[in-house]
Amino acid sequence: MAEAGTQRRARGGGGAARRAERTAISIETAKYIERNIPNFEVLGEEALEIIEANAETVLAEIGVNFVNNPAALKRWQDAGAEIEGERVRIPRGLARQLCSTAPSQYTQHARNPARNVVMGGRNLVLAPVYGPPFVHDAEKGRRYATMEDFRNFVKLGYMSRWLHHSGGTVCEPTDIAVNKRHLDMLHAHMTLSDKPFMGSVTEPSRAQDSVEMCEVLFGKTFVQDNTVMTSLININSPMTFDDTMMGALEIYAANNQACIISPFIVGGAMAPVSVAGTLTQVLAEVLAGIAYSQLVRPGAPVIFGAFVTSIDMNSGAPTFGTPEASLITYGAGQLARGMGLPYRSAGAFCGSKLPDAQAAYETANSLNMGLLSGVNFMLHACGWLEGGLVSSYEKFVMDADQLGTLHHLARGVQIDENAQAMEAIAEVGPGGHYLGCAHTQANFKDAFWRSDLFDYKPFETWSEEGARDTMALATLRVKQQLATYQQPALDPAIAEALDAFVAQKKASMPDALL
Amino acid sequence: MAEAGTQRRARGGGGAARRAERTAISIETAKYIERNIPNFEVLGEEALEIIEANAETVLAEIGVNFVNNPAALKRWQDAGAEIEGERVRIPRGLARQLCSTAPSQYTQHARNPARNVVMGGRNLVLAPVYGPPFVHDAEKGRRYATMEDFRNFVKLGYMSRWLHHSGGTVCEPTDIAVNKRHLDMLHAHMTLSDKPFMGSVTEPSRAQDSVEMCEVLFGKTFVQDNTVMTSLININSPMTFDDTMMGALEIYAANNQACIISPFIVGGAMAPVSVAGTLTQVLAEVLAGIAYSQLVRPGAPVIFGAFVTSIDMNSGAPTFGTPEASLITYGAGQLARGMGLPYRSAGAFCGSKLPDAQAAYETANSLNMGLLSGVNFMLHACGWLEGGLVSSYEKFVMDADQLGTLHHLARGVQIDENAQAMEAIAEVGPGGHYLGCAHTQANFKDAFWRSDLFDYKPFETWSEEGARDTMALATLRVKQQLATYQQPALDPAIAEALDAFVAQKKASMPDALL
Repeated sequence: MAEAGTQRRARGGGGAARRAERTAISIETAKYIERNIPNFEVLGEEALEIIEANAETVLAEIGVNFVNNPAALKRWQDAGAEIEGERVRIPRGLARQLCSTAPSQYTQHARNPARNVVMGGRNLVLAPVYGPPFVHDAEKGRRYATMEDFRNFVKLGYMSRWLHHSGGTVCEPTDIAVNKRHLDMLHAHMTLSDKPFMGSVTEPSRAQDSVEMCEVLFGKTFVQDNTVMTSLININSPMTFDDTMMGALEIYAANNQACIISPFIVGGAMAPVSVAGTLTQVLAEVLAGIAYSQLVRPGAPVIFGAFVTSIDMNSGAPTFGTPEASLITYGAGQLARGMGLPYRSAGAFCGSKLPDAQAAYETANSLNMGLLSGVNFMLHACGWLEGGLVSSYEKFVMDADQLGTLHHLARGVQIDENAQAMEAIAEVGPGGHYLGCAHTQANFKDAFWRSDLFDYKPFETWSEEGARDTMALATLRVKQQLATYQQPALDPAIAEALDAFVAQKKASMPDALL
Repeated sequence: MAEAGTQRRARGGGGAARRAERTAISIETAKYIERNIPNFEVLGEEALEIIEANAETVLAEIGVNFVNNPAALKRWQDAGAEIEGERVRIPRGLARQLCSTAPSQYTQHARNPARNVVMGGRNLVLAPVYGPPFVHDAEKGRRYATMEDFRNFVKLGYMSRWLHHSGGTVCEPTDIAVNKRHLDMLHAHMTLSDKPFMGSVTEPSRAQDSVEMCEVLFGKTFVQDNTVMTSLININSPMTFDDTMMGALEIYAANNQACIISPFIVGGAMAPVSVAGTLTQVLAEVLAGIAYSQLVRPGAPVIFGAFVTSIDMNSGAPTFGTPEASLITYGAGQLARGMGLPYRSAGAFCGSKLPDAQAAYETANSLNMGLLSGVNFMLHACGWLEGGLVSSYEKFVMDADQLGTLHHLARGVQIDENAQAMEAIAEVGPGGHYLGCAHTQANFKDAFWRSDLFDYKPFETWSEEGARDTMALATLRVKQQLATYQQPALDPAIAEALDAFVAQKKASMPDALL
């Protein structure tokens, strides 16, 4: 992999206006998807009502645990819930009522305003893989991820035309101390890309650092008035809200920053083996989590999350791209829309160890399902390998290429006169061909999606060029992208202030937390 | 590949009743899919009306060509169309009115009645790849297909749990003379499998041979009273009906055998570059073709076909699994349902030269779209490679495995008390796990689809076992399936009669048509 680490800091040069400089060096990124196709829905009215009623029963009769968090228990008690130890039982209707103050959509600002995204409505915003401790590429194989890998994935994300969001922990930089990692990760997102990004959630103090770094990047007032981060708050399913994640949520909500409230479900382990049972639990958990965010700050932006996979009952391994996960994802979309909230689910999920056919079948199943289920924010939309243990260089660019198909599919069917093409049909007539006709000439450039990666050549040409499979083509593309990467411009004063913030924070921390 | 050619003929033995013997040796095949999920629809009411009106305009004002077929022109003239040379202009409403005698669904009988399929309604019947002149496997690479390959693919199809139909030209046996090929191909389907199959369409006389071989297999009366073949009649898009294909259609329709009337569209070449324009042409062509089948024999079973791909405007190559093809396939499903006819489209389409990630992304896009678009008969559902030039051994078993996901997805969401799982949620409670609970124990076996091919093992185990990719796993599966294949029993008298029919037909033909 080419490494451009020495270019990481903004290069010097002059006092040009911030905005002008921010957009001086830029690459083409498609606007987030605005769907012109319907959602696919698998739950009828009766099923929806049963699941919604059952979720209220779960909250009222079984309840949820808020662990190690007396302040949360106090908030719940004041709101009318019944507290018993760490168990919170929420009377029917209360959680849904509390959720009603959450906005139905919000804008997440990027430092380049052209990259702002609107979360919610008919939109779909795509972000890369999140969380893997390992990376994989064809040449070096599987290994622990480092900060160099992290920066490479941020660069690849920045250069991906179909990716709207820089994501968060694109891989875990295991060569940086755990307590300092978040600083380097945020610094990379802020300086190597100009797309929107996510904040740290691994400690409340790191969420606070994330807010403060955003204040350096965007200005303090801007951050208090606008959402500049969307961060991932996982629920410990079943029905457990731990103090680390809730502490991060409390910081973000108090600062008007967005959180995804996301059950983390391996069906059969953390939820029942049935679709309807899992949906009931997902809804109960999201209702409790989002209600809590609104107790912290009414109106705080949140997303209805659902990370869903199922377990292989033979091996105990999580499986991906499966039909049961699809049914749950379609159904959870209906539940999210029923609450009027943005929805996060799906991703380039697969269990394969390599970016091979298994990986691609599983991933394509999941990406298509994500588009049709009405997902508004798709984390893990590229680069995910081996059940999320690995960020794959090759799969990152393969998946990122496939995301183009979602953009084109979402356009739906145009029916204006040009699209009807009646003149072309008359011009060509029986037995003719359309290659040279006027309508084709006028429309062909934008008519069909085309992969920037796949092989479309005749067999003979492909053979002469080395009979490369998709992984080999992807290896070349990764190298080419990293070699031609150009850092987006950033006001040098801001770049220096970010450097100083990170240096100062690190200096104040103990060393040994690797 | 293990070859069991010497076992091809039914083994001897006794006078057991036909039916009993037919099912004596059998393998598990899932019932065809009966959808419990809605169709995905991309055309609104207005768009549907415009396309339907435009298709009538095409038929009335531009017309279609019936080539080298005076009898067809006569039929059209008698029905009220306007004839000019070979051009047939069909007054508005006439074609649709003629189509109304076609049945909305029909049963295709298999020699094993347990394998009968019902084409139409909410059903989806899956059949393998059709037509490639080449085959490919990991060990021997790409080469011209032979009769041995053909028999191997019929065996693999017979052993595929998720494949309901044996198909037709699973590959072109290029080592058999063109004029004799259809006899060996039908013989293979009839004797090596007990699933339903397709007839020959490459000459009217070969369609006639197909009918006569079915009379040997099923009995003459049975064939006249029942549909035992579904055959593929391609339209030479744009809007040309050649005498070879129409001749085969005439034979089949006259004998009450089913045909798929299928425009063959590479968008941008054989149809306009727009979705709406292509749908208009598809509908016009299908209306004309199905109307013609009903002129031959009112009530003859037919399927609304749409083979749709788009062209890569850079290279001129057809591309697969693309979003535009998906939009057309969704839309054509709506048009087929508007005519009340069974619908054929989609398949395991890909342009890749290898069963790699490209192949799998493209295929999964197409398979999912096929399920959701309401397809009733999916030809090419497994084994398709390199734009249909190649039948791939490995991809056959990969795709056939993935077809299981369609079965499970089509089940939709159960909402009975067991599926609601409220007792399980109460039993497990916050912080618990579901692995051992009563509900999981009672339901886990059938709860989640599981691949029979993919790797679900931990990284370390997978590495120790050779770090195999999907293609390597598929190579093993192909070998294992062909090595354990057992021929389904067939009444020895019928087997002998089929042998005799083929021998006699071949003896009456010239030799040299390779």
